[in-house]
Amino acid sequence: MASCSSSWVDIPPDSDFSLANIPFGVFSATPRGPKRCATAIGNKVVDLSILQEAGCLDSVPGLSANAFCGQETLNAFVAHSPPVWKETRQRLQELFTKTKDNNSRALHDNTLLQKAALHDMDCVSLHLPLAVGDYTDFYSSREHATNVGTMFRGKDNALQPNWLHLPVGYHGRSSTLQVSGHAVRRPCGQLLQKEDPKQGSIYGPCQLLDFELEVAAVVGGPANAIGQALTMEHAKSRIFGYCLMNDWSARDIQKWEYVPLGPFTSKNFATTLSPWIVTTLALEEGGFACPTSATEQTNPVPLPYLQDPNYSSYDIQLTVAIQSASMSTATTICTSNFCHLYWNPAQQLVHHSVTGCVMNPGDLLGSGTISGSTPNSFGSMLELSWKGSRPVPLSDAESRTFLQDGDKIIMKGWCQKSNTSDCDDNPPRIGFGVCEAVILPATPVT
Amino acid sequence: MASCSSSWVDIPPDSDFSLANIPFGVFSATPRGPKRCATAIGNKVVDLSILQEAGCLDSVPGLSANAFCGQETLNAFVAHSPPVWKETRQRLQELFTKTKDNNSRALHDNTLLQKAALHDMDCVSLHLPLAVGDYTDFYSSREHATNVGTMFRGKDNALQPNWLHLPVGYHGRSSTLQVSGHAVRRPCGQLLQKEDPKQGSIYGPCQLLDFELEVAAVVGGPANAIGQALTMEHAKSRIFGYCLMNDWSARDIQKWEYVPLGPFTSKNFATTLSPWIVTTLALEEGGFACPTSATEQTNPVPLPYLQDPNYSSYDIQLTVAIQSASMSTATTICTSNFCHLYWNPAQQLVHHSVTGCVMNPGDLLGSGTISGSTPNSFGSMLELSWKGSRPVPLSDAESRTFLQDGDKIIMKGWCQKSNTSDCDDNPPRIGFGVCEAVILPATPVT
Ligand SMILES: [Ca+2]
Ligand SMILES: [Ca+2]
Ligand SMILES: [Mg+2]
Ligand SMILES: [Mg+2]
Ligand code: NI
Repeated sequence: MASCSSSWVDIPPDSDFSLANIPFGVFSATPRGPKRCATAIGNKVVDLSILQEAGCLDSVPGLSANAFCGQETLNAFVAHSPPVWKETRQRLQELFTKTKDNNSRALHDNTLLQKAALHDMDCVSLHLPLAVGDYTDFYSSREHATNVGTMFRGKDNALQPNWLHLPVGYHGRSSTLQVSGHAVRRPCGQLLQKEDPKQGSIYGPCQLLDFELEVAAVVGGPANAIGQALTMEHAKSRIFGYCLMNDWSARDIQKWEYVPLGPFTSKNFATTLSPWIVTTLALEEGGFACPTSATEQTNPVPLPYLQDPNYSSYDIQLTVAIQSASMSTATTICTSNFCHLYWNPAQQLVHHSVTGCVMNPGDLLGSGTISGSTPNSFGSMLELSWKGSRPVPLSDAESRTFLQDGDKIIMKGWCQKSNTSDCDDNPPRIGFGVCEAVILPATPVT
Repeated sequence: MASCSSSWVDIPPDSDFSLANIPFGVFSATPRGPKRCATAIGNKVVDLSILQEAGCLDSVPGLSANAFCGQETLNAFVAHSPPVWKETRQRLQELFTKTKDNNSRALHDNTLLQKAALHDMDCVSLHLPLAVGDYTDFYSSREHATNVGTMFRGKDNALQPNWLHLPVGYHGRSSTLQVSGHAVRRPCGQLLQKEDPKQGSIYGPCQLLDFELEVAAVVGGPANAIGQALTMEHAKSRIFGYCLMNDWSARDIQKWEYVPLGPFTSKNFATTLSPWIVTTLALEEGGFACPTSATEQTNPVPLPYLQDPNYSSYDIQLTVAIQSASMSTATTICTSNFCHLYWNPAQQLVHHSVTGCVMNPGDLLGSGTISGSTPNSFGSMLELSWKGSRPVPLSDAESRTFLQDGDKIIMKGWCQKSNTSDCDDNPPRIGFGVCEAVILPATPVT
């Protein structure tokens, strides 16, 4: 079993990048150097273009010669079909496994190749792994939608009539997707002048800056033809993997602008992604599927095109921490789980294309803010501080309702079994790396 | 004056593509042949990669060597700055003008080059001119917003409180942008079962399929850095040109899904664009600017960042016609004008980036449905048939409330002065070509 076999690469026990993970990303050896496709194992970033060039991936059936070579993003690889993803993953696991089989020792036995392909993660720059054609954001946590609805419309009308019938979503802005580590500028925009919208608006820096804890599904496989809806049967083969996502939100701008066409400038200034895409295969093989959501979707039962008794989400443990400019360590303010979602990524994908919408490899589907039922699992400051009415303590000296300049928001996500029955070591951890960004002060136009 | 000089290329008097136009597009000589950048003059499509390769554009300062050569879209050209757009346009006008100047006769005097570069428009395939990174749709006609608001909320609450303060817009789906001539499949999706949303929804073909008459602005120039808002001063140098756009809309899907995050599957199945981008320069040089919108925006006066006393929209005449499967000619059902918009494209662009959103070359900004004040100027069936209550006659035998399978929707747009005082010929026409598509029957998933 891959999850118990050990690697000749040193993998610290708490590493996100065990042999059971094999995530995909993009790095450059110097900040402005050429971008290359990579995987991660332990503290090493592995240049896949070098491995492909050296012939280490020749045994993968169907892998195109330029899947990694000459590519600055993972789009070409992600456009392949699931059997190619699977064979590539297996071959990479082979190459990193301690073994006596010569064919699998191609990298282990070649120190020159290792020197060319392996980099210390601390020494490289990580980049957006994809050229995202279209990015969509859903709203699929029942607890999040209920919390927000309760705040703005009262408990009795918290969920809109459509919410339990379809995964509500909207098209987002792909031009401002950022990889973890890039600072986010506090946006300026139109804010309500008073609580009364008839008073009009003022221009100024957002006063109610927020994060949203999300997981983004990466669409893969060949695009469907326009007019051809995807079905639940297709869905699994069209989701390559997942990354963490912070959907930064300007609540005061949002409140003024969003009726009737939805959030616009309140969301388009930045969205931060974790650098590594954890594959659907790693989550499946690791046994991290949640109980199927079908059992929860009984009142109402979804329309047939949205039903899938076999598909669910994944048991991804999630945390959000804040570290202000004056704090020496971060304080965790939210502990949540990807299983909390009511609508799963397959349902999101199928609904997205129900009208025949083209889903391209590299497209992203944000899950929506992932809130659970307990207050410590709420995935936004809006909910954690209950619209600003309950400051969240960060340290003896500090608390937050919404985010302040200099705050660093740190999201983490990982899968790990708690029992160790079938392995000698710790159960392998399948982690996402970090999704973090610091907030810079606004620069109003004068 | 370019608009009066005549070309050695035969230009029929009613041609959209006069010497004063010089639009930009992408064609292939055979349906699946290589795509190439082009301009149009009269009935000819002119291969710009051939002209650039032959050295005909060497005199344009700043034009990159691969602006057209080897490009399948106009993105590389559009990413240049306005002076390069202007010099390229002038050089192309020169090359097509009757003249005794040898330098300007490079194409005229070289029949082999003509043979390689010029194609009959009837014999080529036209393609999407751009790889659109992000596509945004606005809602900037006061009459359209008032009509829709009156139908759904009554006359007194027709305009939402924010509408007169900012150009309301939302992010759209770029994966289903189509060039004119591609058929559009009637979408299936979730529809309200009864008028009462508490009854839930059914799955089925859209029953209330609609068009929206729009003009899309093409963003050009180098992208702004994330976090750096564009100002009105920047705006003009960031709009390369315009094309016609049909924002297909499924009204029954829209009504059920759009609260609270806006239109999603009701809009993402197709958006049709005209193949030719008419440049801002052609509209400016032709003297087609509308009276400035500043004079109309007094109650309320927009916030300073949205004010520009010098900028306006353009006097683009617009028509929509329908031809059903049984009709031998089309019937014009809408006559409108781009000047009708309350918010102009510069205001849309500046508002879009007020939060620091990155605007990339090749991005599209849909204007929103362009309705005027008279019923024959309404830019959608929703308004023309007033929510289906007033069938629109097409012929003695047919009328429409919403669109039926087999209907061809034909949008046209052009600029032309009515007087001929400064030219012997007809005043030159600056047209967009046609933006048309036929509706195919739905294919429900069983
Ligand atoms: Ca969100
Ligand atoms: Ca529209
Ligand atoms: Mg966002
Ligand atoms: Mg559309
Ligand atoms: Ni001649």
